Amino acid sequence: MRFAEIWASLLPLGRDPAAGGYRRYSFTDADTACRNWFTTRATERGLRTETDRNANLWAWWDPPTPRPGFPGRGVGDAGGFLTAVVTGSHLDSVPDGGAFDGALGVVSGFAAIDLLREREFAPGRPVAVAAFGEEEGARFGIACLGSRLLTGAISAAEARDLRDADGVSLGAAMTSAGLDPAGLGPDENLLASIGAFVELHIEQGSALDGLGEPVAIAQGIWPHGRWRLDFAGHADHAGTTRLPDRRDPMLPYAATVLAARQAAAEHGALATFGKVIAEPGGTNAISSAVHAWLDARAPDETSLMRVVSQVEDAARRAAADHRVEVSLRQESVTPPVTFDPALRARIARTLADRGITAPELPTAAGHDAGVLAARLPAAMLFVRNPSGVSHSPAEHASIADCEAGVQALAAVIEELAAR
Amino acid sequence: MRFAEIWASLLPLGRDPAAGGYRRYSFTDADTACRNWFTTRATERGLRTETDRNANLWAWWDPPTPRPGFPGRGVGDAGGFLTAVVTGSHLDSVPDGGAFDGALGVVSGFAAIDLLREREFAPGRPVAVAAFGEEEGARFGIACLGSRLLTGAISAAEARDLRDADGVSLGAAMTSAGLDPAGLGPDENLLASIGAFVELHIEQGSALDGLGEPVAIAQGIWPHGRWRLDFAGHADHAGTTRLPDRRDPMLPYAATVLAARQAAAEHGALATFGKVIAEPGGTNAISSAVHAWLDARAPDETSLMRVVSQVEDAARRAAADHRVEVSLRQESVTPPVTFDPALRARIARTLADRGITAPELPTAAGHDAGVLAARLPAAMLFVRNPSGVSHSPAEHASIADCEAGVQALAAVIEELAAR
Repeated sequence: MRFAEIWASLLPLGRDPAAGGYRRYSFTDADTACRNWFTTRATERGLRTETDRNANLWAWWDPPTPRPGFPGRGVGDAGGFLTAVVTGSHLDSVPDGGAFDGALGVVSGFAAIDLLREREFAPGRPVAVAAFGEEEGARFGIACLGSRLLTGAISAAEARDLRDADGVSLGAAMTSAGLDPAGLGPDENLLASIGAFVELHIEQGSALDGLGEPVAIAQGIWPHGRWRLDFAGHADHAGTTRLPDRRDPMLPYAATVLAARQAAAEHGALATFGKVIAEPGGTNAISSAVHAWLDARAPDETSLMRVVSQVEDAARRAAADHRVEVSLRQESVTPPVTFDPALRARIARTLADRGITAPELPTAAGHDAGVLAARLPAAMLFVRNPSGVSHSPAEHASIADCEAGVQALAAVIEELAAR
Repeated sequence: MRFAEIWASLLPLGRDPAAGGYRRYSFTDADTACRNWFTTRATERGLRTETDRNANLWAWWDPPTPRPGFPGRGVGDAGGFLTAVVTGSHLDSVPDGGAFDGALGVVSGFAAIDLLREREFAPGRPVAVAAFGEEEGARFGIACLGSRLLTGAISAAEARDLRDADGVSLGAAMTSAGLDPAGLGPDENLLASIGAFVELHIEQGSALDGLGEPVAIAQGIWPHGRWRLDFAGHADHAGTTRLPDRRDPMLPYAATVLAARQAAAEHGALATFGKVIAEPGGTNAISSAVHAWLDARAPDETSLMRVVSQVEDAARRAAADHRVEVSLRQESVTPPVTFDPALRARIARTLADRGITAPELPTAAGHDAGVLAARLPAAMLFVRNPSGVSHSPAEHASIADCEAGVQALAAVIEELAAR
């Protein structure tokens, strides 16, 4: 089991020494370092590496004795070729993110291949480790951008025009990182060559810790989305404007934050305001505007829409009380995902056969597996995170639990890629 | 009456065409343009210009026939010299501020001198127009910095180390604008040479509009201050952290905003949160921290402290509910100012004698006149602002009201500087 060694080789890359967290933003130097790390780990294992047209990375373990006509990786509908079993996740991070989110799935993929080779397992079909680009959307604002491009869930034209906070386009950022944006877009041949995708990921909550198990199988992903609220009031002097004369957008914003929490609690959902911008932002100025973003997630789409509509109603009422204008705009909504039931059942049986108890858990976080699930059988494994914390340097899994995750992943690959 | 012409010559300087407001930040190009404008207006009137050691500007109208031994401007306690009558205000602005705040007082000073000369008034003592530096504190965070340095209300060492948002020190900023920071500090000779300071300013509320009068006399300035609140929670994934597991600092911040409004209403005071920073500021991240600034003002110090203590109590209660840490730190408090009663009475009599009805109004805004009031007789005149709006491009006074202000100011100078 070489997990700890592979893990240690990735750990220093893109870590901010002051914040203690990771800043692995797409197409920056930190990202290039991670990409080089991926290629080195693959090459030293004799895996064939490939960067697809959407800057996703692939490390291919080709079957030792391909059937006649097997093209290495598939070309689609030709008879007689075997689709691949793919694992992996992503290497980019949120601002000051933890070490495990995404990275654990990629490292575990390589470690699972090591384990299978130690056991002298010979795959009957191609096996690959993938690392999808811009999964967090931290630089260009669209989560799972690499897998969305691959599956056509976002168009190449729309993606190419995305801009980061400094106004740099995705195309320009790729070019400056030595990648070619010309080929961006869906890749049907690549998709057709994949028989199943199984993503291992650190749990982003503490359910497994409560259950006392190191590994879970994902049931599905809650529907979730992002809404922008703009409260437009009237800039004024904080020291001279009488309370009744004010049109202060900070007040309805504050009421809306509290209403969102209340609505989420009522519907067994989640609602968060993590980003707020007050303009002009002077200490002695009543704001002219407050811009805020609502992140909302729920077990089903009806509950999600009820939460959002309750938040909107509360925002409108509070805004009217303060003679403030408010508008709410949906920026993105991701429908619910239920991972392939047959694949989940096969994974559950495989793990049970090896004495691994893996409960099924839902999640409210988006993942590349959720995007790919629209096009091919996909599933996820979660590894216990006792802190329950995610998107923070405090996110953590023990080495023993990570190794349990690798054992489970190796068992699944062995089952799915057997001759 | 040349008011409109002088006004028009200043209007284009430092205006942001897109925002429609002014960005006259100290020691920037816009500020240098305003300083050059001041010197040009003074020089074309034959006024002697001076930049004092704290970068405040002075335009001196020396008496035509100084008494023997009169040194132009006074040197303090020597018998037989006549102290000066000074008017003026400031030329710097808040971000996207209005055209009138500060600028109106400087323009009116020049216009009043023009008016007095048209009437062939010969002053019996020096008259000056002053423009104090960094009154808004928009660049270095301390309001009335120029007058505070002049009077010793802030030490030269403390001021020299102030830094702007880009980390540029006050000293470096002055040097790059061609000003010398070496002499920063109190100037007792200059202070001793001033017999009275009368600042004309646009009203930063709509009381005069309600009273139907164009000009008021300031009664005093409410005590006011600035407090920083730091809510420290726990960064976490917005999509995966259960509500009861969260330590989201945005929630107690929101409760505190609403509590501050409530406390201000209860005490006839003002309370504002115009600046808030959420960290890390990601849409899908529960904030690790929220930093916010409370601006509070009240008719008396007891009420002010009651408001702040109510806000603090509410913040602590809400923070505890969400397992968030909160700290409150006083950044500045300015005690109440009552403008010199004898000077106010003399101004009121002077205006009444000329048929000008000028009610007395309190204000909750800080001014250089408030700082100088600690060291010499000071007073203020307000000019009607029908919008009631301040620190915004919507701030406005009619030309007719501005000219009424100039008439009042000229009458006051004529009275105070008469032989």
